[in-house]
Amino acid sequence: MNKNFDLKAKSGLARAGILKTRKGDLKTPFFMSVATRAAIKAGVSMDDLENIEAPVVLCNTYHLHLKPGEELVEKMGGLHEFMKCDKPMLTDSGGFQVFSIKRKKITDEGVWFNSHIDGKRIWIDAERSIDIQHKLGADMIMAFDECPPSRLQNRMEPPSDPAEMKAWKRRQERKLYFKIKKAVERTTAWAKRSINAHTLRYDLSLSLTERPQLFGIVQGGCFKDLREQSLKEITALPFDGFAMGGLAVGETNEVMYKVLDEIAEKLPADKPRYLMGVGTPRDLIEAVSRGIDMFDCVLPARNARHGTAYTWNGDVRITNKEFEASKEVLDKSCACPVCKNGDGYTRAYLRHLMNVEEELGKRFMTIHNLAFYHDLMRTMREQIMADTFEEWKEVTLNQL
Amino acid sequence: MNKNFDLKAKSGLARAGILKTRKGDLKTPFFMSVATRAAIKAGVSMDDLENIEAPVVLCNTYHLHLKPGEELVEKMGGLHEFMKCDKPMLTDSGGFQVFSIKRKKITDEGVWFNSHIDGKRIWIDAERSIDIQHKLGADMIMAFDECPPSRLQNRMEPPSDPAEMKAWKRRQERKLYFKIKKAVERTTAWAKRSINAHTLRYDLSLSLTERPQLFGIVQGGCFKDLREQSLKEITALPFDGFAMGGLAVGETNEVMYKVLDEIAEKLPADKPRYLMGVGTPRDLIEAVSRGIDMFDCVLPARNARHGTAYTWNGDVRITNKEFEASKEVLDKSCACPVCKNGDGYTRAYLRHLMNVEEELGKRFMTIHNLAFYHDLMRTMREQIMADTFEEWKEVTLNQL
Repeated sequence: MNKNFDLKAKSGLARAGILKTRKGDLKTPFFMSVATRAAIKAGVSMDDLENIEAPVVLCNTYHLHLKPGEELVEKMGGLHEFMKCDKPMLTDSGGFQVFSIKRKKITDEGVWFNSHIDGKRIWIDAERSIDIQHKLGADMIMAFDECPPSRLQNRMEPPSDPAEMKAWKRRQERKLYFKIKKAVERTTAWAKRSINAHTLRYDLSLSLTERPQLFGIVQGGCFKDLREQSLKEITALPFDGFAMGGLAVGETNEVMYKVLDEIAEKLPADKPRYLMGVGTPRDLIEAVSRGIDMFDCVLPARNARHGTAYTWNGDVRITNKEFEASKEVLDKSCACPVCKNGDGYTRAYLRHLMNVEEELGKRFMTIHNLAFYHDLMRTMREQIMADTFEEWKEVTLNQL
Repeated sequence: MNKNFDLKAKSGLARAGILKTRKGDLKTPFFMSVATRAAIKAGVSMDDLENIEAPVVLCNTYHLHLKPGEELVEKMGGLHEFMKCDKPMLTDSGGFQVFSIKRKKITDEGVWFNSHIDGKRIWIDAERSIDIQHKLGADMIMAFDECPPSRLQNRMEPPSDPAEMKAWKRRQERKLYFKIKKAVERTTAWAKRSINAHTLRYDLSLSLTERPQLFGIVQGGCFKDLREQSLKEITALPFDGFAMGGLAVGETNEVMYKVLDEIAEKLPADKPRYLMGVGTPRDLIEAVSRGIDMFDCVLPARNARHGTAYTWNGDVRITNKEFEASKEVLDKSCACPVCKNGDGYTRAYLRHLMNVEEELGKRFMTIHNLAFYHDLMRTMREQIMADTFEEWKEVTLNQL
């Protein structure tokens, strides 16, 4: 087996398929539950993920490299064994976290940065990222890329004079363009080095049930020509799938959708397409409608911990006074262990738990929000299979 | 049914029995999992308790009175419905928490104290405590008692001269004696008022499957004559069970065991005996061997959150370097969802979770420690039924 993606149906540009991995098949589109440090936050366990039929888990290379270290994880039999997780697993390259650290030194070779834990100086480059990911042992791993910010960080205040402001903005845009152009070039160079590092350990002709898959990342910010350049260069390489990076990093939703309009459909149709770090339920629907297959995001879990639950009838801010004595569950149509299709925990109870800062509240809210995301993905797949996606999308976006 | 306790077997003074409640029968001796604010800490859910066969839950009246308030809990159908807990449940009287607050004013009528949340001035007395507990809806409720400290709080430093010190200590002991004597008298008066308040709502001749049971509390500190006075006065009242209060409040284990030696066997044999707020596994074994049936304590959960796991081979300090790459579970003989009789999560993984402060680590440690406590209680019951308790006790205390 050397084909990892079977396209089963299309509805408009939206795709439903099967992504094959060495830990089993994944139905696309899907959302990956984020287990940053080899655990979902708020005490959510693998059993909890099992209960909500979460298909796949993502872990963060940067965090695991710092603690407990990839050597230990490898010694313990890899992440699957360490976490007791038998689901397919993806690790990121560590790049995104490294590039969001303030004090770092980027060269064409790689990046020096300081650990956020103890300030220790650490070197990471394509070879090291791939090596760490091999040792962690995920089923899908990511090439090391440069992920630049969507806006420049300026030490100087922008000018207050409107005319000067205009010129200043043009200069900023130009500076950003060249910064991202440089990032695109490095990302291509590092993509090649990532593939070389990968093939040192795994023969790419090996069956995809026997080796981890390597995904390439397309950069280019919000500049159409740079995106197209990156797309052309990255998709020319023998990756097993392709990701869109450098989105959801501060730009507006509209800009992100526009980039997807310009680029997503140009990604190879016979490979899985992954939009990294996205997003809200609305974002997922818009991205699926533009042909994206895979997602990950900390948003549903983070919002859960901060008291916002997603439902098919819009967001519920659980600490609101109106839910003080509410006997309703978060979402009657939700089969998660918190809602139990209406027989589960009341909004009043969840509100109490969040108000007194009981961890159980955060855990329950997280379980529900992840369940909602997986439910959303399964629903989209059904609508694609039935070729009713666009009608469904219109109705659903009005309800959410 | 108006008899709530069936004694099934004795081994030495240790007792095995059945405590009948309106939510089902409880096998004694048992340990109550503490769900202070209508939730076990660290995100442990009712499903988790089900998995470790936790028989019964204790909630704290003081905390629930402050948030969310007993009126709301009653409106939501009582604690069982609010928490989705169908196990028998006990609430304390709130006294213990109130008496551990620094700024309070105790009179013969009751206590004024300030809420630890917002400083609001609150009045509690026997009638109010019983009313709150009725509204919370537990199956076993506690009379309101005065729980004095085991030592006096002194504003003045003790004298440094050894002769003066001796006289000072005598004066202190004398002052403590009269303080505890006063508490014993108030506890008896409040016990009568608690019964009156209880009978206003529930006819004591009602079947015990139809009404909550009311437990009296014996005070008297570590003074034998005061304990005996309190015991005589409290056990003369028509309570459904009797608790020992004012222990595990700072005195040494030896002093506590001595008090139990003097008092426990004088508690009515046909009623359940409850040692409040105790203790370590060793304490539980020593207390059961002296005829105690019921326990609650925050210790196993608190120690779990701070990284100490109980096992049949002694405590495991999980963050110790020695467990860095340990593929062992916490306790191979433990059937809890964390240990799975040896197939569960490794010490290395738990150590990692605790080191990076993932809530999942605290949850897993708590589940294990509670499972260990319940296992300990079930084992003691078996040993009592087989009349091998004393031999087992000797062997076990050497291993723990």
